[in-house]
Amino acid sequence: MLRTHTCGELRLDNVGDEVILTGWVQRLRDKGGMLWIDLRDRYGITQLTLEEGITAPALLDQARNLGREYVVRVIGKVVERYSRNEKIPTGDIEIFPHKIEVLNASKLPPFLIEDETDGGDDLRMKYRYLDLRRNTVRHNLELRHRMMRETRSFLDSHYFIEVETPVLIKSTPEGARDFVVPSRMNPGEFYALPQSPQTFKQLLMVSGFDRYYQIVKCFRDEDLRADRQPEFTQIDCEMSFVKQEDILNAFEAFIAHLFEKIKGIHLGKLPRLTYADAMRYYGSDKPDTRFDMRFVELNPLVKDKGFKVFDDAELVVGINARGAAYYTRKQLDELTDFVKRPQIGATGLVYARVNEDGTIKSSVDKFYTAEDLQEWASAFGAQPGDLLLILAGQKDKTRKALNELRLEMGERLGLRDKNVFSPLWVIDFPLLEWDEDSKRFHAMHHPFTSPKPEDIELIDDRPGDIRANAYDMVINGVEVGGGSIRIHDRRLQEQMFRLLGFSHAEAEKQFGFLMSAFEYGAPPHGGIAFGFDRLCSLFGGSDSIRDFIAFPKNNSGRDVMIDAPSTISGEQLDELHIRMKNVPHS
Amino acid sequence: MLRTHTCGELRLDNVGDEVILTGWVQRLRDKGGMLWIDLRDRYGITQLTLEEGITAPALLDQARNLGREYVVRVIGKVVERYSRNEKIPTGDIEIFPHKIEVLNASKLPPFLIEDETDGGDDLRMKYRYLDLRRNTVRHNLELRHRMMRETRSFLDSHYFIEVETPVLIKSTPEGARDFVVPSRMNPGEFYALPQSPQTFKQLLMVSGFDRYYQIVKCFRDEDLRADRQPEFTQIDCEMSFVKQEDILNAFEAFIAHLFEKIKGIHLGKLPRLTYADAMRYYGSDKPDTRFDMRFVELNPLVKDKGFKVFDDAELVVGINARGAAYYTRKQLDELTDFVKRPQIGATGLVYARVNEDGTIKSSVDKFYTAEDLQEWASAFGAQPGDLLLILAGQKDKTRKALNELRLEMGERLGLRDKNVFSPLWVIDFPLLEWDEDSKRFHAMHHPFTSPKPEDIELIDDRPGDIRANAYDMVINGVEVGGGSIRIHDRRLQEQMFRLLGFSHAEAEKQFGFLMSAFEYGAPPHGGIAFGFDRLCSLFGGSDSIRDFIAFPKNNSGRDVMIDAPSTISGEQLDELHIRMKNVPHS
Repeated sequence: MLRTHTCGELRLDNVGDEVILTGWVQRLRDKGGMLWIDLRDRYGITQLTLEEGITAPALLDQARNLGREYVVRVIGKVVERYSRNEKIPTGDIEIFPHKIEVLNASKLPPFLIEDETDGGDDLRMKYRYLDLRRNTVRHNLELRHRMMRETRSFLDSHYFIEVETPVLIKSTPEGARDFVVPSRMNPGEFYALPQSPQTFKQLLMVSGFDRYYQIVKCFRDEDLRADRQPEFTQIDCEMSFVKQEDILNAFEAFIAHLFEKIKGIHLGKLPRLTYADAMRYYGSDKPDTRFDMRFVELNPLVKDKGFKVFDDAELVVGINARGAAYYTRKQLDELTDFVKRPQIGATGLVYARVNEDGTIKSSVDKFYTAEDLQEWASAFGAQPGDLLLILAGQKDKTRKALNELRLEMGERLGLRDKNVFSPLWVIDFPLLEWDEDSKRFHAMHHPFTSPKPEDIELIDDRPGDIRANAYDMVINGVEVGGGSIRIHDRRLQEQMFRLLGFSHAEAEKQFGFLMSAFEYGAPPHGGIAFGFDRLCSLFGGSDSIRDFIAFPKNNSGRDVMIDAPSTISGEQLDELHIRMKNVPHS
Repeated sequence: MLRTHTCGELRLDNVGDEVILTGWVQRLRDKGGMLWIDLRDRYGITQLTLEEGITAPALLDQARNLGREYVVRVIGKVVERYSRNEKIPTGDIEIFPHKIEVLNASKLPPFLIEDETDGGDDLRMKYRYLDLRRNTVRHNLELRHRMMRETRSFLDSHYFIEVETPVLIKSTPEGARDFVVPSRMNPGEFYALPQSPQTFKQLLMVSGFDRYYQIVKCFRDEDLRADRQPEFTQIDCEMSFVKQEDILNAFEAFIAHLFEKIKGIHLGKLPRLTYADAMRYYGSDKPDTRFDMRFVELNPLVKDKGFKVFDDAELVVGINARGAAYYTRKQLDELTDFVKRPQIGATGLVYARVNEDGTIKSSVDKFYTAEDLQEWASAFGAQPGDLLLILAGQKDKTRKALNELRLEMGERLGLRDKNVFSPLWVIDFPLLEWDEDSKRFHAMHHPFTSPKPEDIELIDDRPGDIRANAYDMVINGVEVGGGSIRIHDRRLQEQMFRLLGFSHAEAEKQFGFLMSAFEYGAPPHGGIAFGFDRLCSLFGGSDSIRDFIAFPKNNSGRDVMIDAPSTISGEQLDELHIRMKNVPHS
């Protein structure tokens, strides 16, 4: 090794040692007679001290000319530091160098390599290799590595076996859009990159592997929203001979392990909420339960009092923003504007403020008596100082809008602390959801999800009411994992494909291998997959998954550092038997 | 869980327990009054015993109708076995069932689910999910998982950090052919799948990550030889602030760890062989050193005795097949045919047999005296009973041919025992190799490999003689890993690209990001990558990597189980802005 120690290693015990360090020049302070250099590597920072009269003049001169981010190799003696730096583990010592070798020079970096940098997003992405030098970004990737290790450690010790499934598979248009790969050896044919290893892990269950996992890259060619990536990482798991309860217990233990080992937080038993209740009380299948503020439905209390908006509404529903009665007219107007934004789509906002003296002031005082309003307050369990916020309209839309308002109020009231974690299970999802555009049912999870046995009789008449053995793990309003008990019976799987509008031939072409496998002794099985990027960002206290991916892509799916995607040669196109459409050859 | 125990778990201690097992019907033996069922799961086999007069008649009847590979759930009592089966860990007990529930029936499998199966390769690949049920195949994947765990355990404990690098990257035609992925969002542009994360791991070194690893899928669109896969797995590693010696030591410790933990074998210090010596003594840069049989060069001994073949040859070189003097004329003819096969390309084979009385009989007796032949024998250190096999011709070709003959003789003489492991380092590879077709130099490893500093002066006049700081780890004639110290200086990297025939613009377009990164304080670094599939097959004592991949592809790059690649819809092609060339839309 070019060094004897790292920059995070030396302590008082080493005083007097002759050492060799390597690293980057983080900072250089030149006070005339004294020169200090902070030398940085992955492990920490060590101070080099040079002093006129002690350090050889040539060396001092050389050191003065070092630039930020130069890589150097320093030979010197460890000495006790006169004024200690309590903030860093090496703060008790410093190095008196007697030789400095420049291993590589550096141009001036385009932004500061500091925790707080002056580089904008685009610049930092282009020079991602410099951005990765910053402590904050490095710590994120170190966290990711620790989370991987703890994930594997837990699953390995619970008899899960990690099996790699293929990346070059078959395109199955159901679900999101596939990335495809033209096959040179099979002209006219394409591989697809997996959106998940779903069918392969089910085949492994048919094979008797019993407990499988994989930390695996998956791919979706979707229009990228702010925090989506075309390639992402899943913790993918499957178990045989289980019921839903077994999976919930197993992965509740898994998440508890992660919280224990990574955050030092002891999780109790996870609450469970049915999908129906999640929608009723939070207007979302991924409620942020760090704060209560449950929906209260007001239909019986508000109808037939002459307020047309409420009378016409399918649902009148509100939340109690505790202690927010102090909200000014301006703030209430902001909230009204907020819910009327097109993405949220409410037509207006009704509020009722519970004054300190217990009287209530609302925006609909002309329709409701003081007694009416007291009834509302009591339905909300409201206390003096609380603010009731009420929306009305079509049920599903209103719930969704109130969910947004609830989250906004949670944010404004400081109830969404990144250091508080509130995980829960949402269970009993519907099997199907109706799609207005295509006028047919889609699978809410995927076509392999098993309906609840007691609901199967609804399959012909009320398929929309069938509940699935499907579950999501939600933490702080984020769906971190989801899964289901799978169908393991060929006939039921065929029935499911029919329900989803597959012709027999389509089902057979795309998933014939799986249905065929079900005929050779497929065991009951189920599983779950966790979004690993998301889980890391949650544990890291960040909203952005990009911060936890070494080399992320931007919103157009570009890697601006390496400049990919890019054109390829006509020769490559020829070999792959494809041509560009309306795009000239490069 | 649907079971209380696995099929590998019950022992004498459990006698009297009421248990529930789940698994597959491996075998059913019906002796009239008695019926035995071997119930199998991933963990083992447990015997169920049913007996007329004890078992309820209906249950006995039900059991008789179970077929092979049915999945069942059995409730019963553990009893001590009358005649023990020493071969299985559960052989002391058996189960008297009182309830058997068929969880899923099975059609008759297309081949025997036994260690020795009657299924051919194609059939087993089509029904890979059934093939994976066989103990041998399952054990291979279990070995693979253990090897992954031990790899991570070693590297984690040596401060390597696992970082995931992107799968959707940029096409760089240097090296093998890329798989490419058309970009929907960037019309006319393509991603490429990585042949290795080479540039990304180097960027991580520039970022200061210091020690990186990843067990990662890589992709090469090559014409598939018998044992190549289009997607394969690498253990990819890189370190900063190292010299070649540091990497050799670090990964020698790594491989020793694997042998210790997986095979219980203690490896000593690994021998090192220069590339030049490997070629000279074995005719191969991946010599199988389980057996000696080194090449002996005979030029000074054989020239100018009137034997034109030897006189005209650039090199006359042979091996001593110890104890093979008993080889018959027929066997020697076989060997001659072997070396004359077009893949091997020798023009003939000269032999000399050392008889028990010390006299020598050769195929060229008319040119060489008894004394000449004794000189040969002494050059080979030959003893009575040995057989000398000699080839002649152009140096490189002859060495290659003799390498094949050496391996063949090793095989025939039983010197290539799969349970013996002989790892070594081959070092000092040439930096460049001349390509006759394109009349230019290619990088022997890749363009990022660093020349040996002392050889750089040869760059203008004798570039072919420059040695690289490059090394391979070879075990039993298989290159299991290879790597190099990398260039970390922009100017040297530019020089390298020029030498390889890149124009300035090409180099900039493809690798500008890397050369740019070198200008911001790139540390000295180097690394290695191990072929994980190959390493697993070696540890598993198999020649085929397919046996160690859950879902391999065949020689045409097809997954015959899921039938991929396959056609995609015209709509998909349109979205991707591509058309098929001379292939009608599907």
